[in-house]
Amino acid sequence: MNSALFTDLYEVTMAQAYMAQRMSGTAVFETFFRKLPHGRSYVMAAGLSDVLGFLERFQFLPSDIEYLRGLRLFSEEFLHSLAEVRFTGDVWAVPEGTVVFPNEPIVQVIAPILEAQLVETFVVNQIHLQSVSASKAARVVEAARGRKVVDFGARRAHGTDAALKVARSGYLAGLAGTSNLLAARMFGIPVFGTMAHSFVQAFDNELDAFDAFAQLYPGTTLLVDTYDTLRGVDLVIELLTKTPGLEVAAVRLDSGDLGALAKATRAKLDVAGFNHVAIFASSGLDEYRIAALVDDDCPIDAFAVGTKFVVAEDAPALDMAYKLVEYGGTGRTKLSSGKVIYPGRKQVVRRVDQGIFTGDTIGRADEQLDGEPLLVPVMKNGRRLAHCDLDLPTSRNWARQQVDRLPAQLRSLEDSGRTYPVDVSPGVARDLERLRQSPT
Amino acid sequence: MNSALFTDLYEVTMAQAYMAQRMSGTAVFETFFRKLPHGRSYVMAAGLSDVLGFLERFQFLPSDIEYLRGLRLFSEEFLHSLAEVRFTGDVWAVPEGTVVFPNEPIVQVIAPILEAQLVETFVVNQIHLQSVSASKAARVVEAARGRKVVDFGARRAHGTDAALKVARSGYLAGLAGTSNLLAARMFGIPVFGTMAHSFVQAFDNELDAFDAFAQLYPGTTLLVDTYDTLRGVDLVIELLTKTPGLEVAAVRLDSGDLGALAKATRAKLDVAGFNHVAIFASSGLDEYRIAALVDDDCPIDAFAVGTKFVVAEDAPALDMAYKLVEYGGTGRTKLSSGKVIYPGRKQVVRRVDQGIFTGDTIGRADEQLDGEPLLVPVMKNGRRLAHCDLDLPTSRNWARQQVDRLPAQLRSLEDSGRTYPVDVSPGVARDLERLRQSPT
Repeated sequence: MNSALFTDLYEVTMAQAYMAQRMSGTAVFETFFRKLPHGRSYVMAAGLSDVLGFLERFQFLPSDIEYLRGLRLFSEEFLHSLAEVRFTGDVWAVPEGTVVFPNEPIVQVIAPILEAQLVETFVVNQIHLQSVSASKAARVVEAARGRKVVDFGARRAHGTDAALKVARSGYLAGLAGTSNLLAARMFGIPVFGTMAHSFVQAFDNELDAFDAFAQLYPGTTLLVDTYDTLRGVDLVIELLTKTPGLEVAAVRLDSGDLGALAKATRAKLDVAGFNHVAIFASSGLDEYRIAALVDDDCPIDAFAVGTKFVVAEDAPALDMAYKLVEYGGTGRTKLSSGKVIYPGRKQVVRRVDQGIFTGDTIGRADEQLDGEPLLVPVMKNGRRLAHCDLDLPTSRNWARQQVDRLPAQLRSLEDSGRTYPVDVSPGVARDLERLRQSPT
Repeated sequence: MNSALFTDLYEVTMAQAYMAQRMSGTAVFETFFRKLPHGRSYVMAAGLSDVLGFLERFQFLPSDIEYLRGLRLFSEEFLHSLAEVRFTGDVWAVPEGTVVFPNEPIVQVIAPILEAQLVETFVVNQIHLQSVSASKAARVVEAARGRKVVDFGARRAHGTDAALKVARSGYLAGLAGTSNLLAARMFGIPVFGTMAHSFVQAFDNELDAFDAFAQLYPGTTLLVDTYDTLRGVDLVIELLTKTPGLEVAAVRLDSGDLGALAKATRAKLDVAGFNHVAIFASSGLDEYRIAALVDDDCPIDAFAVGTKFVVAEDAPALDMAYKLVEYGGTGRTKLSSGKVIYPGRKQVVRRVDQGIFTGDTIGRADEQLDGEPLLVPVMKNGRRLAHCDLDLPTSRNWARQQVDRLPAQLRSLEDSGRTYPVDVSPGVARDLERLRQSPT
């Protein structure tokens, strides 16, 4: 899936045109989004690790070249050159887990225009998906107020790549882990699992299913809602009572009125003396439903999120773009209605007061501005810089600190009406105005 | 991405428990969804081809086994057996492109329970994504009323797998092709491309950019909205006027009021005598916006769909499930609140009157019912059956005929309030009632 051919046809036709025109100057492309979707007051940037891996390995294989030849759009000279293309540029980016706002560059690619153009599709694809997903996960984590949340959504993520990357960006944003084994192995994420209804159904009676599973997996979680939730809880109590030494860590509720069922389940377990058996809930959960359950003091100890989380149902897309802002040392813009680009290579600075973020300025990369710069160099001449190759737990801590430093209103699940202050520096405003006067 | 480890932890813990209990009977699992999302009156089934490929190659690699060993949940005996597991079962399914309704089995897996359980996550992941996407695409195609629609959404699909599979299911449902080269190569789909704003921006003036591109690619499409759409159109006219023999097939509008701009563009081109230059539109399009443009008689000849299409923004998920309905020859059910399963291996029959679908019945596989059966055998003993290995163009024709045979109200983009009649046979109703009386 890391094929260089994972690109749009026009990237390659433009590349040939750049070559035909001997346009080999350095381009600066910036990845950013223009607008926060409804229900989001910030975006958590993610996906950089996959982007850097892709850039390091970027190469058209002989079979790719062969396919392109068959399109009858490309000269032999170009195809020969294309086979030799590697990514030789520099990349600046905000670290994964950084919270970002509209128009702030997330990834800045500085490379010969042909190279920078060819990688667009993959760069946007990964930064988009993983930022959408980390942003959703950060909200789910906030809603759970310290309770554990696990990703159970692999089956309804949009394809295998999304399932894996959503597990990763979920963990980045503070989820406890994933049910997906491949994701857990690839990214070193804790893996979780309970049991499915099919297991219970396959036995001739529910109690036997619980017994078989709990004997094999001491400390497991039993799914109690296959036939009747509270009767399932009674069976767990019966099993624990008649089998001294059997360890069951939790019961899982997966349907119905989770709040009421959790309270009734807790009462049953406590009366029977099984106060240590926890309650795990799933079924259509997202940040809104988790927050409602937590607000209602429901005795739920941990949550699993699936469909609504993995597809980021309320905001499945950002208008993530990858735009040329400089070529051959000159600022470039675009004035299309509603889609203006701020020209020139940029930096973002963030001001902090008493540990809380108070405002950002999008400035020229060479401008002296007050605040901490967000963009840092992460790749030089096509090679990752070692110092920025953060491991996932480190990025996860960074991500948590980022959310902790947001103004309280921005952390609220409901739209507070308040937006985070981001302005554009005098230098950038001046450059845009100049280009507006004579765009071409 | 076709790794057997693309599964949830609980599938493997359950597998070990089945083995420990010597439960090796045949299971029947059915994949279906329970509810149409708002804004959908049917679902177009897709993803079968990837499912069958996965099942044929299903195998845990030594490195997978090694990872599982490290989890300290599995016995050596089980891990040795697991390494030998292949998928040896049968599969029945509706052909890709078939329109389906709530509770109708889309894919039916009949295999030893351990095998059928292990493949759940992948089966649901692919049928879900591709059916979500084909269903969205079918609506987009309807809205365009014969005008060409192309997928330009790779960059904002949820990851690389989704980008590829959405391109495929879009083509299945009637899109003309995709911009994604890898998808086009993998699935033999026509590939399309125009030019990006970055290309125009990189030149010192717009006219030079148009000239360079059109010279290199006779019959290309020029993107005219980088600075000012109608001025861009004027430049194309200037270029065509002063360069006899230069061929430009279309101009592309990518921002602003597409309807008004298309009309003004058409007028300018026609006055200048370039009636043959077509208009191609993109920018935030989905079936609703395309329908509005078509209804308004906007002179747009072709559309590109991106973000809203690739993420299926208005309905990014279905409650797709994979449920045990039979084990060891006995019907199985589940009575969880709002999530009842109809027991037993099933068939769906569809009645047709004067070429239009009039109603379906979900029956027992062995029941005699009036209508055409939808589920056909597609895999026997773990091997694909040759006759059902349809090529994509054949499936695409099938998909088109399916939509053509839907009652008119179901083809409407707006919710007509009418639902397609699907009932449950007396045999299935009886089996459910019997299990309801004594579930376990």
